[in-house]
Amino acid sequence: MKNDNSYKFSREFEKADKKFQVGELLIHGNEVVIAAGPCSVESEGQMLETAKGVINAGASILRGGAFKPRTSPYSFQGLGVEGLEILEKVGKKFNVPIVTEIMNTELIDLYSEKVDIIQVGARNAQNFDMLKRLGMQKRPVLLKNGLGTTVDEWLMSSEYILSNGNDNVILCYRGARGIENATRFSMDIGAVVVAKKISRLPIAVDPSHAAGKKEFVKDFALAAIAAGADMLEIEVHNNPEKALSDKEQQLSIEEFGELMDDARVVAKAIGRKIR
Amino acid sequence: MKNDNSYKFSREFEKADKKFQVGELLIHGNEVVIAAGPCSVESEGQMLETAKGVINAGASILRGGAFKPRTSPYSFQGLGVEGLEILEKVGKKFNVPIVTEIMNTELIDLYSEKVDIIQVGARNAQNFDMLKRLGMQKRPVLLKNGLGTTVDEWLMSSEYILSNGNDNVILCYRGARGIENATRFSMDIGAVVVAKKISRLPIAVDPSHAAGKKEFVKDFALAAIAAGADMLEIEVHNNPEKALSDKEQQLSIEEFGELMDDARVVAKAIGRKIR
Amino acid sequence: MKNDNSYKFSREFEKADKKFQVGELLIHGNEVVIAAGPCSVESEGQMLETAKGVINAGASILRGGAFKPRTSPYSFQGLGVEGLEILEKVGKKFNVPIVTEIMNTELIDLYSEKVDIIQVGARNAQNFDMLKRLGMQKRPVLLKNGLGTTVDEWLMSSEYILSNGNDNVILCYRGARGIENATRFSMDIGAVVVAKKISRLPIAVDPSHAAGKKEFVKDFALAAIAAGADMLEIEVHNNPEKALSDKEQQLSIEEFGELMDDARVVAKAIGRKIR
Amino acid sequence: MKNDNSYKFSREFEKADKKFQVGELLIHGNEVVIAAGPCSVESEGQMLETAKGVINAGASILRGGAFKPRTSPYSFQGLGVEGLEILEKVGKKFNVPIVTEIMNTELIDLYSEKVDIIQVGARNAQNFDMLKRLGMQKRPVLLKNGLGTTVDEWLMSSEYILSNGNDNVILCYRGARGIENATRFSMDIGAVVVAKKISRLPIAVDPSHAAGKKEFVKDFALAAIAAGADMLEIEVHNNPEKALSDKEQQLSIEEFGELMDDARVVAKAIGRKIR
Repeated sequence: MKNDNSYKFSREFEKADKKFQVGELLIHGNEVVIAAGPCSVESEGQMLETAKGVINAGASILRGGAFKPRTSPYSFQGLGVEGLEILEKVGKKFNVPIVTEIMNTELIDLYSEKVDIIQVGARNAQNFDMLKRLGMQKRPVLLKNGLGTTVDEWLMSSEYILSNGNDNVILCYRGARGIENATRFSMDIGAVVVAKKISRLPIAVDPSHAAGKKEFVKDFALAAIAAGADMLEIEVHNNPEKALSDKEQQLSIEEFGELMDDARVVAKAIGRKIR
Repeated sequence: MKNDNSYKFSREFEKADKKFQVGELLIHGNEVVIAAGPCSVESEGQMLETAKGVINAGASILRGGAFKPRTSPYSFQGLGVEGLEILEKVGKKFNVPIVTEIMNTELIDLYSEKVDIIQVGARNAQNFDMLKRLGMQKRPVLLKNGLGTTVDEWLMSSEYILSNGNDNVILCYRGARGIENATRFSMDIGAVVVAKKISRLPIAVDPSHAAGKKEFVKDFALAAIAAGADMLEIEVHNNPEKALSDKEQQLSIEEFGELMDDARVVAKAIGRKIR
Repeated sequence: MKNDNSYKFSREFEKADKKFQVGELLIHGNEVVIAAGPCSVESEGQMLETAKGVINAGASILRGGAFKPRTSPYSFQGLGVEGLEILEKVGKKFNVPIVTEIMNTELIDLYSEKVDIIQVGARNAQNFDMLKRLGMQKRPVLLKNGLGTTVDEWLMSSEYILSNGNDNVILCYRGARGIENATRFSMDIGAVVVAKKISRLPIAVDPSHAAGKKEFVKDFALAAIAAGADMLEIEVHNNPEKALSDKEQQLSIEEFGELMDDARVVAKAIGRKIR
Repeated sequence: MKNDNSYKFSREFEKADKKFQVGELLIHGNEVVIAAGPCSVESEGQMLETAKGVINAGASILRGGAFKPRTSPYSFQGLGVEGLEILEKVGKKFNVPIVTEIMNTELIDLYSEKVDIIQVGARNAQNFDMLKRLGMQKRPVLLKNGLGTTVDEWLMSSEYILSNGNDNVILCYRGARGIENATRFSMDIGAVVVAKKISRLPIAVDPSHAAGKKEFVKDFALAAIAAGADMLEIEVHNNPEKALSDKEQQLSIEEFGELMDDARVVAKAIGRKIR
């Protein structure tokens, strides 16, 4: 099925890596692109401080959640539009693209206006109606795998976007359900390797959600780069202990800097670079 | 966490089974309620013939997909609004409630008007925005578990509906990803048993999607009833060989009749009934 | 592969159910056979009291662990040969067959002499050397699935016994690793249903290990019977609170009696009986 | 539980990395040790040619299966003692340690005599009786995780060896069952990372069995090194197309050489070396 040139995500459809620009940044080139920032946008001060820290350490994209998909309705749900506007403002200030998750099809126009890369999270990875609509707008889409989706299903989700006219899609592996409880999710490196072989799309990895604990994040990130990831998305908070969500898995700016130092040498070893 | 009276789905919040009416039909009473019908609404003729067959055999609710969540964008996507209207018409003709899946938050008003029980499928089981909106309207919701969600996460999804004002929710287990390939999904009977212990909501089971092959459906259905399921949702087609989707797992009307005969005696054995 | 008459476990090799006697007890006949007893043999008094209780309630086989496969080397490892001798003595006193697990190939002769049904646990389900040797002796073997084996692999393990000359094998499903944490293991009813379709061997179910909590055991047992299980193996202790292992999942004799009452009516509903 | 100094595998028991010699080779030092060789020992000629190739490319240990755990009893079961003797002879000729799997407790004396590192495969990962006996002899043991074991269970299996007197144990992750079908097993890099954090034992990775397809092996290997693996065990055959087992996943000598070139630079990037 996968080796079928009728699927636009596949290398049978087009052998070459699909590359595209986000502003001045090239996605899927030789550079392993790093997106970093907090789980949730909490305030302008938090975003300014975090952005300064992560960009200084080498991140090229700023992440931050405005609308948050939380398992419980009673957990902090994000600042919503206000969070989006803070993120936009801070991204502009530092002149870096921003990536943030969309949870609601009705907000696509707003996201298309304000957001450089629109993220589809694990919970909406098979929200086909949303994917179709995202295919009809022009912003690049970062598409995570679902908690229980296979690589085939994940690629097919990307096809909903591509077949509707938008082929600027980044596949982002964020771990999946497995048999292990010591980590938050199973980080099956095979998913990354297989997706890269089959698909011409860039592959990102989110080590933070897979690990679920900050002490594992760096090793997950290094493994992802070695396995061929074209981009990483990492949760970093200027003050992790005070974070309103995902406290345990967000790195401090200092820890992120250490990760970047190691990531740079691994990337170099396999012939790639990190800025 | 689960034994916490702050969750409206829980038996700590309210010990008694949550019961409610759909038209004249009582959900979560002594009767194990059977919903049956094709995977996809394909034509009025198909629906009339299937409805006649399944109602005759003891089904109380008519199911049929109008908007279909298909892994591939190139698979048959359902008849859409036209399918919804056929389903509504046939339900009215036979005077039975209808259940069908919603894939798009913008269609909630239309579904609230036309559909007796609004189904949220596995792919939208953590589409929290959709769940919130469904909590703000009055139709009962049948909420499937996600392909990779745990029981806790599934119950928390129901809380998004309940906490927004609608407590007419049916939890429907449809199998989950597991380590076995001989069936389409893992039919973990523990999910049904645990959900029933923790939650006051009625628990339905969809043996068709879990099994993925028609020859396994009956045994899955009997196991579900024995484990305490309050409702079953079963795929039946008047001509399965010609079905436009899920051909392998849809029962013929005759096979459904045989399932119902066996289901009736198992239900009776545990002190319940099937009409 | 499975529909291949070269596999002795398969219905292609021989269509009819494989039946055999253990003493006066017919396995794989119309009767759903119940094996019950404690996780571990702890003392003669415990075994006498438990045996009396479970046989009185309708069990036909007495179970009890003498050599215990414990995850930790520092947990109680069973009484060993002494436990085996207590079990043998109590089985003879009540004139019921005994079933107990073997962990060591060198003890096969001893087990062949003393034990009516030799159990291979999940941890040795692919100990192929042990399986071959068990095929070369005459006692029936109860073969559990491995924690991470598929149905195909489980059946292939049985083939190691059958192909070496012993076709008195009972397949016993004890749950497998899955994505759910609310139960000890995933009780994928599909494994039972698929094994029954493919194989002519009798299928047992162990609801105790799958559930891991006593409050779930009955519903798991009823589901197993409804799905077609030919035998159940259930952990029962005369004083569960004082049990040296698996305290949480062992039923009291009274709880076992209630389970049997319900099991009897479900078995009857599907045309089978429990004594 | 794991942060308990009563477990000899843990860093609480002893903080420092457990190092030991196999002949002149240091395990768990700065060098990432590479074991390579065919799935099965097939003939002396095959072993000589393969050994020459892999040692030339940088392998320090020769692997090869003499007794093979095959899912089906009708698959090639290995050359047995003859295979062991070929492996021993070739290891001596090239003056490298050999590693091979044991499937039978009764052969422990023979293995202790002839084999430098005794491998316990996934199917015997919880064969506790075998593990105890291996703890009572002096040869280092390479212990794979089971197909369905968690990291905790895997570490506890090592404790059976350590607590019986042998603390020269290498933990080897070989993938586990997961939800993905595109690879043979799920290569959860988290298992490697978590095991390294908790345990003072060296961690090896077997990318060949996890991948199941030769085109994925190199990327799996690089990810393992980046994540901190202290050793790799890789299947290499002098003529993979003619291999009697695991044909699809064995590398040719040339492919192995390419893997080694890349592995060397990744190891160097993280401050380690490969010879």
